[in-house]
This record gives sequence, structure tokens and C-alpha cells, in this order.
Amino acid sequence: MRKPILTLTTDFGLSDHYAGTMKGVILGICPQAQIVDISHEIAPFETIEGAFTIAQAYRYFPKTTTHVVVVDPGVGSARRPILMEAAGQYFVAPDNGVLSLVGAHEKRKVRLISNGRYFRKPVSRTFHGRDIFAPVAAHLAAGVPPSRMGKIIHDYLRPEFEKPRPSGERTWTGRILKIDRFGNIITNFHESEFSGLEHKSFSMAIGTAEIGGMVGAYSEAPPGELFAIVGSSGYLEISVNQGSAAKQVGCQVGSTAVLTVS
Amino acid sequence: MRKPILTLTTDFGLSDHYAGTMKGVILGICPQAQIVDISHEIAPFETIEGAFTIAQAYRYFPKTTTHVVVVDPGVGSARRPILMEAAGQYFVAPDNGVLSLVGAHEKRKVRLISNGRYFRKPVSRTFHGRDIFAPVAAHLAAGVPPSRMGKIIHDYLRPEFEKPRPSGERTWTGRILKIDRFGNIITNFHESEFSGLEHKSFSMAIGTAEIGGMVGAYSEAPPGELFAIVGSSGYLEISVNQGSAAKQVGCQVGSTAVLTVS
Amino acid sequence: MRKPILTLTTDFGLSDHYAGTMKGVILGICPQAQIVDISHEIAPFETIEGAFTIAQAYRYFPKTTTHVVVVDPGVGSARRPILMEAAGQYFVAPDNGVLSLVGAHEKRKVRLISNGRYFRKPVSRTFHGRDIFAPVAAHLAAGVPPSRMGKIIHDYLRPEFEKPRPSGERTWTGRILKIDRFGNIITNFHESEFSGLEHKSFSMAIGTAEIGGMVGAYSEAPPGELFAIVGSSGYLEISVNQGSAAKQVGCQVGSTAVLTVS
Repeated sequence: MRKPILTLTTDFGLSDHYAGTMKGVILGICPQAQIVDISHEIAPFETIEGAFTIAQAYRYFPKTTTHVVVVDPGVGSARRPILMEAAGQYFVAPDNGVLSLVGAHEKRKVRLISNGRYFRKPVSRTFHGRDIFAPVAAHLAAGVPPSRMGKIIHDYLRPEFEKPRPSGERTWTGRILKIDRFGNIITNFHESEFSGLEHKSFSMAIGTAEIGGMVGAYSEAPPGELFAIVGSSGYLEISVNQGSAAKQVGCQVGSTAVLTVS
Repeated sequence: MRKPILTLTTDFGLSDHYAGTMKGVILGICPQAQIVDISHEIAPFETIEGAFTIAQAYRYFPKTTTHVVVVDPGVGSARRPILMEAAGQYFVAPDNGVLSLVGAHEKRKVRLISNGRYFRKPVSRTFHGRDIFAPVAAHLAAGVPPSRMGKIIHDYLRPEFEKPRPSGERTWTGRILKIDRFGNIITNFHESEFSGLEHKSFSMAIGTAEIGGMVGAYSEAPPGELFAIVGSSGYLEISVNQGSAAKQVGCQVGSTAVLTVS
Repeated sequence: MRKPILTLTTDFGLSDHYAGTMKGVILGICPQAQIVDISHEIAPFETIEGAFTIAQAYRYFPKTTTHVVVVDPGVGSARRPILMEAAGQYFVAPDNGVLSLVGAHEKRKVRLISNGRYFRKPVSRTFHGRDIFAPVAAHLAAGVPPSRMGKIIHDYLRPEFEKPRPSGERTWTGRILKIDRFGNIITNFHESEFSGLEHKSFSMAIGTAEIGGMVGAYSEAPPGELFAIVGSSGYLEISVNQGSAAKQVGCQVGSTAVLTVS
């Protein structure tokens, strides 16, 4: 039988014991779990980056995978823990928008996690990753049905960074979702909504930079020159061949990106 | 049957091949091992941080877990390799204090690891993680009884950072055990010995900073203000809501923290 | 039965979703795979460091392990994907020299990976780690024979950093392969070719530094003084006891190291 897969995406970093502690809790509840780290290096409290990261990764995992996402600036406050079902997979996270890019075009079902029976006791006020999210996910991976965790809700948070909005006749204002290790700037302009740009005249403004050209592969562009490319994520990215676009442009996650098509 | 769990805590970092090499050695000896990384990002040679990290993590792992801890500034010198049994788990490490916060309030049994039969040969003078600690732990995980590794000793190292010491009538001098990714400053004042501070007037001096207030959750405090909190570790932490206390205070692992209760 | 082991060595970092995505692809094809991270922190595009890292790690893994190495500045260009068989193990990587230090003294067989049947479709032009290397490796780990991937080639890339070259009567010019976390400078002078230096008078020039002394263990040297040592890798390293040699010398991966024996 396939072993249950359980992934972790957090802003805990890899220097501290937090991620390891969650794994101990998970293996105590579901010894057969295959635990996979997506990332523990989400920038602290950066829900946009967390949302982008899990949304990129989940689609490559088999059905029935359980994903735990803990980027949780509101831990200890009234923010709620939720369980989302989408694409045949489970997602356990705080209700702060960090799941908003998952299954955006699919049917999704969201539950409030309220059944304390599956929590680790006592529940601390500072580490719900260990006390709520990890044990709930481990019980799901071990076969507890989602309906046991709590009832379906519809008023979960849907943040504004989900997609670009029109801001003029031929202009859209979007956001930077992520700056990756190579300095590629990933926007929230998705090819499914902004296709065919390579055949048009356009400009994308980020900070003081204006990018106009588009290529099909990094190596097509001359070194040092900013260009746009549809990245492996399906989103429009601003890049430099063998260099860091982010350093050249000077933007950050959450900055605006304005597209004008002429 | 439950697969044997084996955890790793080192200062090897994740850029080098050292941690991966240890995993190869472990899987060669104990193919069914479930290897869990606690952290490889302990600051180089920082035994206090290593001691804190494993002491936080182990209690969330199932019994019979084997933990390998390699923060080893004295590799190649006369320092001894030891095996500690505590809380139904095994700990394999150099005898330099890195296990001193594990099982501090429990019965523990410490053995000198001397049986070269379980080492990888030849034993290098620079990488005992690969040649002694990993293979010994893998043999333990595979079922070799601890008594085979060597005889019980009582003179293992007990470092001074284990707990705060009285330094006046109402004053205790402790240490910074860890600064976590979020900039929280974790002291060695444990709630089991310093309880009820939230009902008292107290001040904690670290560097030039004086902290007086205490909260129950990060989100209770106004942004930017230093406060004390009993963290998920059970130790008193100095924190700032959504900011880095360490940056504001300017201290490091090993710095003193002086508590005065009035 | 032993579970198939599959290792990953990349320059993807741990902040992004790239490594996690590859693991999802692998587990979808080969659910029983035991995935081991060697490193995802190879410096971006640094094939020398990637080559050193996998060459250090593989020898400690059991036979039949499959290694995926993705340091791939030429992704999307004409560079070829290859499969190397050496030491009873498999290595999947771009043909850019990143496998050149593996099995350097053993028989190795190299195939061009050309059978698109084992790729993930559609193959992107920016992420062959996900679309070619991970799925091909997962199929190998699941039992597909190497001959199915493509035919044997002999003209794979052999880069110049493989070994030092004579540059005078008693002088050899080599390279820095790696600077590790502790600041140790690892050269490509291997003990198998440069043995007995501890009994000779020699100097090694790196940048403006000249190193003459040799020790058998880090702790033998006085703090602060540069020395040479045969590291756990078998290569000559320049080190400082409890300090960073790289900071003192100021060199980088790829810099030359000139050995003169008198």
C-alpha cells in the first residue's frame, strides 16, 4: 500500500528545532507517514510567499497527500485553523490567506478545525504548528475523515493578491508573489489570463524599471538585460540570464507590478 | 512494525555534503531507518545552541528514537564519544555538554562509546559524525543493545549553562541559550523553577536592555515593545510582536541574562 | 526488501518550492523511494561545487542508489541530459561537468538520456529538474533498466578542474573545489596523487597567502594560524583551528592554488 505523504511548508527556518519537533509529533501519530519538506524558509510572517510556494508544489504530489502550511503571524489571536480539500488533497493551515492560491480554479471545500480531540494537549499559545496543525494533519494522513475535524465554512479569508486587477483601459495592477533564489521576480500575472503577450507590444513597470521584451528560455537573452518569461510556475516572471533581476530592479514580495498593453 | 526513527542535529550546515554523507552511512547499516533532520544549522561549534535544540525536540519523538548530535569543536582531540539513555530514547554525541539539557529532570544513563566494532573504518581525525556517531546510531536503531557500545561512566561533562545561579538576594544570573529565527531571545530561566513571574514585579537585564512586562501571547503586546513570555520551550523568552528582539537588544548565545524580582 | 534510495543535489536552495516539487514528482512515480537530500545549497550555477559535493557523498551510499544532480546554468539550451553508471550506482544530471569527479578512478558508462517516454510532459524550458531529471531517476529507482533511457556516448564533457596540472619543475597548479561552512578551503590536490607532503618542505599559494605547515588534526594547530591538512574528503584543505581560513585568505571556488615542493 502507498504510504501516506505529508508535506510541510513553514516560515520556521532550518536553524531552530520547530520543524523537527513537528515531525516528531507527526511520526508519533502516524508512524508510516512519508514526510516531505516543501520549504521552511518562507520569509517570517510572509503569507504571500507561503501562498505562492504551496500553490506551486501541491500539483506535483499524488492524490491524498496532506499538506501542512504554517506561516502564522496571528498565532495566539482569534485567527482560525482551517482544513481545505482541493484536487483530492488536504491542506491544513491558519485562515490568513496562505491557502488562497491553492485550487484557485478548482472546487474546494473548507472546514473550520474545531475538534480538539485531534489536538496535542495542552495547546500552547505560541506554537500551533506543533499543537494543532501537525497533529490534525497526522490524523488525516492516518485515515481520520476530514468531516471529523469540523464543519464547512464559506467565509474563509480571500486576500487581494490572488490576481491582478484592471487599473485602466489597457492596464492591470498586480503583485510580486515571490523572489526566488536566482533573483527571478515572480508576479501574479498568470498565463491562463494573460496569454499571447509575446505577440504584443507591452511594458511591465516594477519600481523604477520598465520591462518590454519577452523570451522563451533564459539562455535566449543577452546577459545583464531584463526580460519577461513565462516561468515554470505559469506566472509571468522578470529575469536576467545568469544574474539576479531582483537586485537590478530593487523590489520585494508584495510590491506592485503594472502591466500596460499597447 | 514501527520503523526505527533516527534524528540528526549538527552544525554541518546544508550547503556541504556532510549531512548527506552521514545519511548514506546510516542507510547502509540500517536500511529501514526513518531519518529526520532536527537541524544542521546550529552555529558552528556552538554547543549551547546544540544542547538547547536537541533538548527541545526529543520530547516530541516516540520512545526508542535514536538521536545523533554532532557539534564537535574538539574532533580529533581526546574528547570522548558518549551514548546517553534517557526517556526511553538514545542519544549519541561527543562528551562536550551538548546533551546536558536532555533529560535534565529524568534518570539518565551515560556510556563511553568504545567498541570500535561499530565504527566505520578507518576512523578519520576530522569527521567522527560519519565514522563514529552515524554508524553507532545506525547499529542502535537496527537493534544492537546499548551495552555493547561501552561501559557506564559518571564523569561526563556538565556545563555551567544548565541553569541560572543565584547572584544576589533576589537576583539570578542566567544565560542566553538560543536566538531563534524570529529574533526571540531564549534564556535558561525555566518556568518549572521561575513560575508566577506574571504576578510579580521583576526586571530582566540583557546587555543594556531592561525588560519588565510579561504577556501570554505575542499578539497581546504592542508592536515594537520588548516583553517577556514563557515560550513553547518552557523557558522565559524576550520577544517583540512581529519584530526581532535580538536586533533591538544586541545579544548573542551565551550572553548573561540577570533576573531581579522585587 | 531494501527500499530504493534516491538522492538530490541541486542549486535550488531551500526557500523555493523547486526541491519539494521534484520530490512530489518522484513519489508519484516511485512511491517506495527513500529520498535523501545531499544539498540544495550549491551556489547558483556553480558546477564545480556541485561536482565536488556529489563526488564526496556518493561513495557512502549503498549500491543501486540513484543520484540526481541539478546544477544547470544551460537549461533550455542545447546541453544534453546524461545518465552515468559508476560504482554500481546511477547518476542523472546535465552534461556540463557536474559528474566529472564521480568515479574518476573507476569504470563508468555514460548514456545520453533521450527516451521522452520517461519525461514529464510537457517538458518546460526552464525546469528540467522537475520534467526530465526527477522522473527519469524515479523510473530508474522503480526498476526501469538504464539501457531504456538512451544510448552510450563517449563525448561527455570533462572539465579542466578534474585535477591539478604541472606548471613548472616542482610546481602544480590546481583549483579550489569548495569552501565549506567552517571556512575550510578544499583544493583539488588529492592524497592519492600528492602523498607524503607532511615529510617534505612545500608551500601552497592561494591569492596572496602562502601556507607551509601541515597537521594531522585541526586541534593540533594554534588558533589563528593557516595550515594544510588532508581533509575527510581525501583532498588537501587549507584550514584554521576554530576559525575560517576562507575569510583569512580571501579566495573563492574556482580560484587557483599553486603547490611548490622544494
